[in-house]
Parts: sequence; C-alpha cells; structure tokens
Amino acid sequence: MKRILLTCEYDGTSYVGWQRQNNGLAVQQVLEETLSDVCGDTIQITGASRTDAGVHALGQRFHFDTSCSIPPEKFPFVLNTKLPGDIRIQAGREVPPAFHARFLSCGKKYTYRFINQPHASALWRLRSLHVPVTLDLSLMQEAADTLCGKHDFSAFQASGGTAKTTIRQIDFCKLDRDGSLITLEIHGNAFLYNMVRIIAGTLIEIGHHKLSPQAFERAFATLNRLELGPTAPPQGLELTDVEYPEEAFLFPEHLRWHTET
Amino acid sequence: MKRILLTCEYDGTSYVGWQRQNNGLAVQQVLEETLSDVCGDTIQITGASRTDAGVHALGQRFHFDTSCSIPPEKFPFVLNTKLPGDIRIQAGREVPPAFHARFLSCGKKYTYRFINQPHASALWRLRSLHVPVTLDLSLMQEAADTLCGKHDFSAFQASGGTAKTTIRQIDFCKLDRDGSLITLEIHGNAFLYNMVRIIAGTLIEIGHHKLSPQAFERAFATLNRLELGPTAPPQGLELTDVEYPEEAFLFPEHLRWHTET
Repeated sequence: MKRILLTCEYDGTSYVGWQRQNNGLAVQQVLEETLSDVCGDTIQITGASRTDAGVHALGQRFHFDTSCSIPPEKFPFVLNTKLPGDIRIQAGREVPPAFHARFLSCGKKYTYRFINQPHASALWRLRSLHVPVTLDLSLMQEAADTLCGKHDFSAFQASGGTAKTTIRQIDFCKLDRDGSLITLEIHGNAFLYNMVRIIAGTLIEIGHHKLSPQAFERAFATLNRLELGPTAPPQGLELTDVEYPEEAFLFPEHLRWHTET
Repeated sequence: MKRILLTCEYDGTSYVGWQRQNNGLAVQQVLEETLSDVCGDTIQITGASRTDAGVHALGQRFHFDTSCSIPPEKFPFVLNTKLPGDIRIQAGREVPPAFHARFLSCGKKYTYRFINQPHASALWRLRSLHVPVTLDLSLMQEAADTLCGKHDFSAFQASGGTAKTTIRQIDFCKLDRDGSLITLEIHGNAFLYNMVRIIAGTLIEIGHHKLSPQAFERAFATLNRLELGPTAPPQGLELTDVEYPEEAFLFPEHLRWHTET
C-alpha cells in the first residue's frame, strides 16, 4: 500500500464544489470514480481544501492510498486520458504513510480576479467578478497591507466555519492591474471558511470609498463581521497553490530501507 | 437613418464563428437577432473580421444602419441585458454614412496563447494551445522579428483566401512568458486568412527546433506554404483590437451641419 499525493487543476464552473454533495457532481467524485477505475479498487481521496461551487483551482492537492502498480509520477498521464477537460492532474509523487494533504498543509496561496470596466467581460465571465465602478487601487493596497502578520480573523469567516482557532498568519496580499484585469494574490499559513472572498468583497468597498482602508484593522479589534464588506462571489476565486513543510515528505527510517530494497 | 459602430467581445467556444453558417449558431446571427429585437426592424451587421469557429474576440467591431432612437452610446447597456454572457458589447458610437467596419480598417491586433507545460491546462483549455515540449523562446522571438515590415505573405494563407493583394505590413510580433502561459501579440495593417494561426504554428516548430528561425524569410523568398509549420488550432486565437484612421470618423460638412441642428 502506497500513499500518493497529486496536484490538480480544475475549472469549477460545472461542479458543486470540491466535496461530494447531494445536489450535483463534485470534483472529488469525478476524481474518485476515475481513480477507482484505473486502480481497480475503491479509492477515497482527501483534498487540501474544500473549495465551494464555482471556485477554481490551479494547484489543489489531495492524497489517497492504493496498492496498484502505477508509478506515482505516471498518475497524471494515466488520469488525464480519462478525466474531463476541466479537471487536469499536473503532478504526482509518493508520500509517507503519515502524510495528510489537509492537516499538514503549512501555506496556501489564493488568487481573486476582478474585471474593472463599465461592461462585463465575455472572456473572463466565469473566472472573475465584474466591478463596473472606478476603483482606487492604491487605497486597496494600503488596506491589503494591514492584513499581513498574525491576527485573529474571526470576523473574516462565514457562519458554518468549524476552525478551532481563528488566528491566522498572512504573508502577503498584493493587488496588480493589467488593463481591466485586477488580480489579488494572497498567501497565508491557512484560511477560514470564505475568508478570501470576504477580503475580496471588502477591498472592493474600500476601493469604491464605501469603507475606510482601516476596515480590516477595526475588524481585528472588534472581531465583528459587520466591519467588513460582502462576501465576493465564488467564480473570481482560485486556489493557486498548497504548500507542505519539507519534513512532511521524509519517509521514516524503516520505510526508507523498505523502499530502497 | 444612422450608422452605428459597436465594439464587441466574445468567447467563440460555442459558435461556428463570426459569419452566419448553415451548420450552427454564429456570433453575427445572435447579434443581428438581438439588434433587430431592440431596434424593432431587421438589422444586418458588417464585421471587421470574419473569425473562425472557436476563435475569440476582445475587440471585434461591426457597423449597421438603423433609424431607431436608441442613443449610440447606450447600445452596450441595452444589448448586454439581452445577449448571452459569452457575447458582450463594450462600446458604441455613431459614424458617418460612408464608414465601413471592414474596408476602412487600417490596423488589427491579434493575440495567440500557448500553455507550455507537460500536462494540459483545465482553466485555459478553451483559450490556448497546449504545447507539452520545451520551447526556445529567444529563438522564436528572433524569428518573430523577421516578420516585421512590408512583405508578400502569400505563403501565409489557407487555400480559400480571396485577398486581391498578399502584401501586408507587420508592425510588431512579440512573445512574452508568464509561468506556463506564452502570449504572442501581433499587430499589422491587415491579415490574410489563417495568417496568424500559420505564424503561431510555425513559431512552435521553430521553438522546438523543427524549423529554423529563417523559415519566415525563406517563405517570403519562395512564397511556398511548405516552408512554414502547421496552422495552429483556433481556440488559442483572439482578435484583440481593430483600428481605423481618424478621418474615417469625420462627418462630411453637410452632415455635420445636419447633426448639429
């Protein structure tokens, strides 16, 4: 039995999200069915992050156990011939039995995209939020900078969040404009449920002078969700990358010996 | 009666191309039906460029005549409430009666996108060509530079081209890499049928060392299509912008007087 870690890109448009639901097809379900087919056994996968319906991923990661003989690095080739075009495996490797895609993650990067022009975009309609009003990007960046560091983000979560602690460390949050496309990139150790979408929605209000650039700091002080803007819609969000500490990939001594023979 | 010029963005994925065909829905047809509906009269439109099935547009332009009372700059708002999300009008203005979206165009810009990584992209699958082999971008740029200037591009067209002259002026052709995404931007006075897709397909062969960076120069000398690479597929191509000389927008004296009263 081996534990395999795969890196997965998907266009979330046609799915009810990462996790299996009763109301439609989930990315997890498509992957589990395809993996079960190629491995010849029932495979259950564990994703790093449970993305919502309509949310995309460039670098989602998930693990599973299998005793099939496919070499770990061949999984992308084998799976991509069977998966629909809106789900693609980009990398595969074997990891130690104690590896866990969700619990061992030490860093994530998300990207949120806005199209800032009078009329909506045809080409970016499924991967961005249309913002028709003029935005003050320097004010938005000033506010984004106040997110950096370690803070109590309890005001930054949707009801239904189940995290034990609401302390999170944000490493950077930067905005960049390329014509009408504004890209928000945020990196942190972990994120609460809907946290990035609440940050995106708040930044829009700040850029539109409806909230002050101190809104995030006030929310850290009061822990009050009402200091912040609305939750931005899912289609602008992308899970860009998931990181693990180097130690997570180290096989224990007796397994290393086993693997080498 | 007024002549109106509109700027149109579309995702070409679901259409048989710009021009009406017997085998499916064309962008032109959707626009003509929607315009006829809002103007209360049968409207025929003339596009600047007849894009193929699957080709996208950020800045297609088309003109039509109408006697309806909608102010020209309001057409985007009126049409966008009725058009499907994959077609969006970005701008509208009145133009002189002699204006012609196709014949008066003096410059066009096209963009071709490649995803250069081992496995295909889920998120860019409908807007790029997947190139799994390593590409030598500096060699590709060296070849792209030889396109600039005035040349006989008769080797650079698909059979079925009906242009009277095959002399074209290219102003720039530049390649840019952002991670796995390689973007080709090309600007010229006009383009032959499939010319950008043939250039894109040839640049890939050059970047993969299958054709020499002198391939374009040889094709100018021999006028032989066989000097060049294959025609790259449509979904990587986008008509980015269409330009007109300032004079095209000048109303004749008697009409200006008429408009001002």
